[in-house]
Amino acid sequence: MQDQHIASAFDRDLEAIQAQIMKMGGLVEASIRDGALSLDTRDEELAEKVRKGDRAIDELEEMINEEAARVIALRAPTARDLRLILSVIKISANLERIGDYAKNMAKRTGVLSHMAPVDDGTGALRRMAREVERMLKDALDAYVQRDAELAMDVINHDRDVDQMYNALFREFLTFMMEDPRNITACMHLHFIAKNIERMGDHVTSIAEQVVYLVTGEHPEDDRPKADKTSLVAEG
Amino acid sequence: MQDQHIASAFDRDLEAIQAQIMKMGGLVEASIRDGALSLDTRDEELAEKVRKGDRAIDELEEMINEEAARVIALRAPTARDLRLILSVIKISANLERIGDYAKNMAKRTGVLSHMAPVDDGTGALRRMAREVERMLKDALDAYVQRDAELAMDVINHDRDVDQMYNALFREFLTFMMEDPRNITACMHLHFIAKNIERMGDHVTSIAEQVVYLVTGEHPEDDRPKADKTSLVAEG
Repeated sequence: MQDQHIASAFDRDLEAIQAQIMKMGGLVEASIRDGALSLDTRDEELAEKVRKGDRAIDELEEMINEEAARVIALRAPTARDLRLILSVIKISANLERIGDYAKNMAKRTGVLSHMAPVDDGTGALRRMAREVERMLKDALDAYVQRDAELAMDVINHDRDVDQMYNALFREFLTFMMEDPRNITACMHLHFIAKNIERMGDHVTSIAEQVVYLVTGEHPEDDRPKADKTSLVAEG
Repeated sequence: MQDQHIASAFDRDLEAIQAQIMKMGGLVEASIRDGALSLDTRDEELAEKVRKGDRAIDELEEMINEEAARVIALRAPTARDLRLILSVIKISANLERIGDYAKNMAKRTGVLSHMAPVDDGTGALRRMAREVERMLKDALDAYVQRDAELAMDVINHDRDVDQMYNALFREFLTFMMEDPRNITACMHLHFIAKNIERMGDHVTSIAEQVVYLVTGEHPEDDRPKADKTSLVAEG
């Protein structure tokens, strides 16, 4: 009886922190979306909103860390419970980094809106960002529902983001070779593409955590990556 | 007096865990080195050793997590102490992932040693791995010495790894176009290059943690990445 009581108190604590994680995830998803939108529509006001909004994300991470520490101190969880509470710390760290990348994307809106647009560059970035945003949503759903299958879907989906990045990389190269006046803008666009790809890596890390939590095993890492596919397409 | 006593007890606990981190780091460095060596010298026995050695790395992570949780439960650290103890959890997670990548590199030794060698492919990968190994050593030194400057060096150094990856990517493309019989081997080599690049990303994460611990600020993320440079070189 005593044990059960302690267990469900831990569960309630964990659920409360997970609610904070979902709140943080929602803010980060909005940052990705608005960051990419501000870039594509040259909306400097929206970009400013994204930049300023990053503080709330950082504060949530702090709060989640403190809360997780409080639960560890109070409940002294071990084994699976410990893994669960540590996952909260790691996932919030991933979210914080994704938020930083979104902020950096927004930062470039100001620079790029004063340059001639490069074909559909920002549109392509926005589609790539939308893909990452969807992956993040799925990864967090998989986390809350302890759904390893959905998490594996997210991990495999990261290939698409890598593929989009590789395609954009080649596209920007072409634009630069076609017209050297495109070089500066393309460098910014390429930087943003790389940042979105990194967001995808962090989302993958979250999904990997979910697989580990549910199955007790790290997902196999020698899944074929999109880069392969693109190499074959080129070869 | 009581406060000071508690503080130094925490410091001793932290130092003990940090010693475990350094031990784990040493194992991971050896895995990177031996994994790349086994690949370059087609030493399947050494590759097997690396694969099997990954278990010890995983076990160290578990041990570090449990120890960190014990310290949190016992000392209820807040503010800076809490950040310090959480960094231990995050850094050991990064090390564990790097170890996985090294294991996967070793796994390919068996496959690649039965294929015709592709120019200096494995030699180039070994040099790239050596770079990452050095970065990891510096990142862990920066961590133990709380040296934000050295950590920033590591972060900036990640460009070199990205640059090596980009150069290899183009080289493998060329080999594949020159002779389609190279395609399978090049796909494996490219996969390994990508894995080494990811190791670099995790080392960068460790270095970023150090900067955050020492300065209280996350390093600026809009540092120019190597990909830019390579784009310019191409453009």
